[in-house]
Amino acid sequence: MVSRQGGVFLARTVLIVAGGVASAEEAREAAKDADFIIAADGGFSLASRAGLRVDLLVGDMDSLDSPPQNIPILKFPREKDATDLELALDYARGTDPERIVVVGAFGARLDHTLANANLLEKYDLPVVLFHQGFRVYLVVDELEIPAALGDLVSLIPLSAEVRGIFTWGLRYPLHDGVLFRASTRGVSNEVVGLPCGVRVREGKLLLIHKPQGGGQ
Amino acid sequence: MVSRQGGVFLARTVLIVAGGVASAEEAREAAKDADFIIAADGGFSLASRAGLRVDLLVGDMDSLDSPPQNIPILKFPREKDATDLELALDYARGTDPERIVVVGAFGARLDHTLANANLLEKYDLPVVLFHQGFRVYLVVDELEIPAALGDLVSLIPLSAEVRGIFTWGLRYPLHDGVLFRASTRGVSNEVVGLPCGVRVREGKLLLIHKPQGGGQ
Repeated sequence: MVSRQGGVFLARTVLIVAGGVASAEEAREAAKDADFIIAADGGFSLASRAGLRVDLLVGDMDSLDSPPQNIPILKFPREKDATDLELALDYARGTDPERIVVVGAFGARLDHTLANANLLEKYDLPVVLFHQGFRVYLVVDELEIPAALGDLVSLIPLSAEVRGIFTWGLRYPLHDGVLFRASTRGVSNEVVGLPCGVRVREGKLLLIHKPQGGGQ
Repeated sequence: MVSRQGGVFLARTVLIVAGGVASAEEAREAAKDADFIIAADGGFSLASRAGLRVDLLVGDMDSLDSPPQNIPILKFPREKDATDLELALDYARGTDPERIVVVGAFGARLDHTLANANLLEKYDLPVVLFHQGFRVYLVVDELEIPAALGDLVSLIPLSAEVRGIFTWGLRYPLHDGVLFRASTRGVSNEVVGLPCGVRVREGKLLLIHKPQGGGQ
């Protein structure tokens, strides 16, 4: 819900719909609880297909045949120094939200996929990205995920080193552990207890969660 | 070609076939000039579909219904601390090759895609990864790519900072430039002159090249 404090609308959950690969169903799932929806350029098509109300359109409009007439547009020059997702995330951060949800960040172009994942290191608030059944969480201090036994969890460092990692509920636990970005050690862990979560003392970490669709 | 020096076979170009998304045609394209072919676990299926001769199979064999009987296998326990691609790359590096080509590194699982890209920071020799028309190069000192005018090029830092970047042949050139990993500034450059290349003084950089299929 959007609340009004001192005349300013404060969004609790901001959804960014980007131009990568996502189904309309996944976009609608990501949109649950969203107070404010930003379409990042080509993401507007996805938002439209999913029947989502877009509050703001951000980007250079190079992915749209004809920009919509009836919603606010934050237009950037075509020769800009950032992806549409970075522009949208920067704007979203400015609304001081409790969390940001993103759908369509990955998949259409490998360079965008890698750059958009790395980009998350820039931010310091809870972000979760939906991508074809995967949930990618930026871990800020501590995170518990809504998981079921048997789910897949991978820990992917964004910083060169991530230190002081404590996990609970995972088959291969870490207790004051260290992960290095240039190593694949954190890949393919498994949820074996609930609740399941991670705490990080130093560094930026992604937690990637893939529900296996089974029961608890 | 494999050459023999002092009784040791030296591979010039090692191909690693990994278990991600790739067509048989792309695997065969990546296999051109390969002296030695390593299948990383599930990559063996792709190599077989592509009709490639596999010299070594590396992994925990968890992706194969029945491991082949007639080729050498470097078997790791299932509860290992690395992806099959990391194990294969470590082995390949030990053969002291001139370059390593990889196909199937990306696409099947988002966590593998991100971890395998980050992993390249660990290596210090020319690696190129084929992925659905994209070529991902690990830049070691200097690199010129076989490109055509109009091709897409993105520069994706692996290190937190990459310094002393010089490019030639690109629409948005860098001259002693700096790129930060947590920024998408290096995405979506374009080949406007030939030859096209990049030199890096400090840090690890990926160059992602997407031929547009047009002429020169």
